[in-house]
Amino acid sequence: MTKIIQNLTEEQISNQCVFSGDLLQVHVDNVVMPDGKLSVREYVTHPGAVVIIPLLDNGNLVFERQHRYPLHQDFYELPAGKIGLDEEPLLCAQRELLEETGYIASNWRYLATLHPCIGYSNEKLVYYLATELNLQDACPDDGEHLEVFTLAVTEAIEWIRVGKITDNKTVSAVFWVEKLIRGEW
Amino acid sequence: MTKIIQNLTEEQISNQCVFSGDLLQVHVDNVVMPDGKLSVREYVTHPGAVVIIPLLDNGNLVFERQHRYPLHQDFYELPAGKIGLDEEPLLCAQRELLEETGYIASNWRYLATLHPCIGYSNEKLVYYLATELNLQDACPDDGEHLEVFTLAVTEAIEWIRVGKITDNKTVSAVFWVEKLIRGEW
Repeated sequence: MTKIIQNLTEEQISNQCVFSGDLLQVHVDNVVMPDGKLSVREYVTHPGAVVIIPLLDNGNLVFERQHRYPLHQDFYELPAGKIGLDEEPLLCAQRELLEETGYIASNWRYLATLHPCIGYSNEKLVYYLATELNLQDACPDDGEHLEVFTLAVTEAIEWIRVGKITDNKTVSAVFWVEKLIRGEW
Repeated sequence: MTKIIQNLTEEQISNQCVFSGDLLQVHVDNVVMPDGKLSVREYVTHPGAVVIIPLLDNGNLVFERQHRYPLHQDFYELPAGKIGLDEEPLLCAQRELLEETGYIASNWRYLATLHPCIGYSNEKLVYYLATELNLQDACPDDGEHLEVFTLAVTEAIEWIRVGKITDNKTVSAVFWVEKLIRGEW
């Protein structure tokens, strides 16, 4: 049953940008599939984002509560933010952490680059572990409303278990930091 | 510095559907933020999807390699698929697992509902653990091209470590199944 298909690539034959907004561009491409048949792909292009895992000296994580309009609910999530045009992801992470939470970290460790939504978006998420944290003053962007709080890693795992944390970028990060703390990463 | 803001809700004042395709609808809403200022939210509505963690009796996972056009690359990922109109997520998961991989599972366990892309999509991902697997014949949808293979959980963890698995729905699932096997979930 296992089918070995060497080449699964789909080739673009046309591209149409059907919407261009401040955040998202939406495209509809005609493609040729590996079997030679035609199909249509609808997708979003996105500038990419950083996700910061701010781990305090006492072992707690710096979390945020934010309203996420597409789902009309508040989410408990780790700090994150869009990468600016030509912005270096690490500098973006440092900027976002300070803006959103007021923390500066002396120690930054790149963890991974993941893809949140491969079916219909080209977004990448660049993950960093931030440690040796010192609190300054938060200076959120105009229009950025959030609540900052701290949470033990064990409690974050429990919040995933009971469905209180459902943001996938945060779920993988929490599992990750648990492995880091255990020395498994 | 921790700011306690009780209400972070953004209220819709207008909605415009700027694109309606076969997969995606794209909306641009004007909203009122908690401070009374106006803003614009661009987002996608999506029917939701299921993610299946098919765990074989020998401890291996059933994986897929698929080309994901928005990123123009192949991804190693767990079976997943869009929920049909009025379709029960569990029935969707059973259908997708059989269609894509040829496996039927006698035992299904709901794990969680996560959100992959809270910044600009209302998509939900409903996760199931599928065990007691028996191989039938795969019957992929017309136009669905994929390679099915099996992978040990330890190897999947290693593929995450080295950046060979970067699909976030799969990353959180692999960390999860490792916890399930360890009896931590």
